[in-house]
Amino acid sequence: MNRTDTPVTVIGLGLMGRALAGAFLRAGHPTTVWNRTVSKADRLVADGARPAPTVGDALKAGSLTVVCVTDYPAVRELLGASDVELDGTMLVNLTSGDSAQARETARWARRRGARYLDGAIMAVPPAIGTAEAVILHSGPQTDFEAHKATLEALGTVTHLGADHGLAALYDVAGLAMMWSVLNAWLQGTALLRTAGVDAATYAPFARQIAAGVAEWLPGYAEQIDSGSFPAEVSALETDARAMAHLVEESEAVGVNAELPKLIKAMADRSIAAGHGGEQYPVLIEEFSRARGD
Amino acid sequence: MNRTDTPVTVIGLGLMGRALAGAFLRAGHPTTVWNRTVSKADRLVADGARPAPTVGDALKAGSLTVVCVTDYPAVRELLGASDVELDGTMLVNLTSGDSAQARETARWARRRGARYLDGAIMAVPPAIGTAEAVILHSGPQTDFEAHKATLEALGTVTHLGADHGLAALYDVAGLAMMWSVLNAWLQGTALLRTAGVDAATYAPFARQIAAGVAEWLPGYAEQIDSGSFPAEVSALETDARAMAHLVEESEAVGVNAELPKLIKAMADRSIAAGHGGEQYPVLIEEFSRARGD
Repeated sequence: MNRTDTPVTVIGLGLMGRALAGAFLRAGHPTTVWNRTVSKADRLVADGARPAPTVGDALKAGSLTVVCVTDYPAVRELLGASDVELDGTMLVNLTSGDSAQARETARWARRRGARYLDGAIMAVPPAIGTAEAVILHSGPQTDFEAHKATLEALGTVTHLGADHGLAALYDVAGLAMMWSVLNAWLQGTALLRTAGVDAATYAPFARQIAAGVAEWLPGYAEQIDSGSFPAEVSALETDARAMAHLVEESEAVGVNAELPKLIKAMADRSIAAGHGGEQYPVLIEEFSRARGD
Repeated sequence: MNRTDTPVTVIGLGLMGRALAGAFLRAGHPTTVWNRTVSKADRLVADGARPAPTVGDALKAGSLTVVCVTDYPAVRELLGASDVELDGTMLVNLTSGDSAQARETARWARRRGARYLDGAIMAVPPAIGTAEAVILHSGPQTDFEAHKATLEALGTVTHLGADHGLAALYDVAGLAMMWSVLNAWLQGTALLRTAGVDAATYAPFARQIAAGVAEWLPGYAEQIDSGSFPAEVSALETDARAMAHLVEESEAVGVNAELPKLIKAMADRSIAAGHGGEQYPVLIEEFSRARGD
């Protein structure tokens, strides 16, 4: 059976689920779909999808079933119904959730005889089916390898490891980076606009800094993995003085100072813990500590 | 007079000041130095620098004087002494400070007949004299152009505009980006380490996200400058649901949730203000509002 002949099923036809089913159809896969509200399937059925009357029927039709619903409780409710046979199925759960839910659902599926991959979609629905759509998977490598060619109809797929919780963790970690770059750019844009500099003028500068700092990360990671943080480039206590300038400038020109203050508070705590002479990655100790109430 | 024959003066010989004077010397400039503690000049003098007995003498020796001292009050104290003649001098103040101090010092210097550029050094001392050292300047463009060739001995120099406050603003804006990328990477590293993923494994993923998001900034800037934020890619209320996952995951695995909570709080406020259906850059309104007490 070549890859485009592989029958697939998509359960859940929200915006994202419809994008997933559409990408399978465009790649030539016989595609069965199911959604609680049947009308959500109309357009897909017009494009060649086969609507299944029940979740159980839907699962039987595909050699691989992608699940993309509201949340994990909904996954368990749908797949746990008495008329659904999971034994022998291959589930790829792309529903958003946390790492604990992913691991728990993997155990639950395994007890019912299903093979299970958890996944996270790092893309918006319109990107699905293009190389730009990054989809992360975690779970048994053999299951991923067996279905990789089929999953590639959805985007650029990656296997992170056997721990089913990894996709959820990488997902939120990547999002934290995304929002942080955007927020830092907004902070800078707000500062510069007080001097009449427009956002378009400032953006290339911000882009260059973000891309430049991104290049430091692999080197800084070595300090974390070795647990040794010599101040090769700059000591945290020197950084903290510049952080004070960021806070003062934000307050002086009347823009939001919350992000600058959080940046400084994290460094101040690390300095108070005796790390002022060490380098920035020593802050991993602050970031690894439960806090935020 | 060719560029390397231009006599220069450096006032202030802390770590950074010594690096600046050293770079001028290596580029072949006759270099006069002054520091309150004379012994700080010893190594530079051994390398060919000329020590001036007073600030006034130092200013007379250079056709351009770079000032790099503790803070702006120190600049005014040194250059405002009764035996110092500023009339006709060209000052390039690379002391760290805020935009208001820069503008005020520019006015002060102009009243005394000096030409004045303000600058910010986005580099650590060991990088000074290499292309990696980015040095931002603001003030009259003619003054910058007249001395650009000389200043290029110190690093990659840029002129931001006539407003003397710009260098300080770009400086802290760039630093906010730097710390934000690092903090987001630390947040992600802390999350992943709870699943046994080491920092070196996660770093390339974080690097890719940061560099990728950096590319969005010029496009997003157009939304800010036009004041119109259509949800072309994603609506803020959709983002906020993913932010809740980031907060919950951070709390569930027991890492610091302060940064996730700040990210979510900013978005929540913007949604409460009626922007849930708009795109992320609409948060510029939150970032532009004085807050953070």
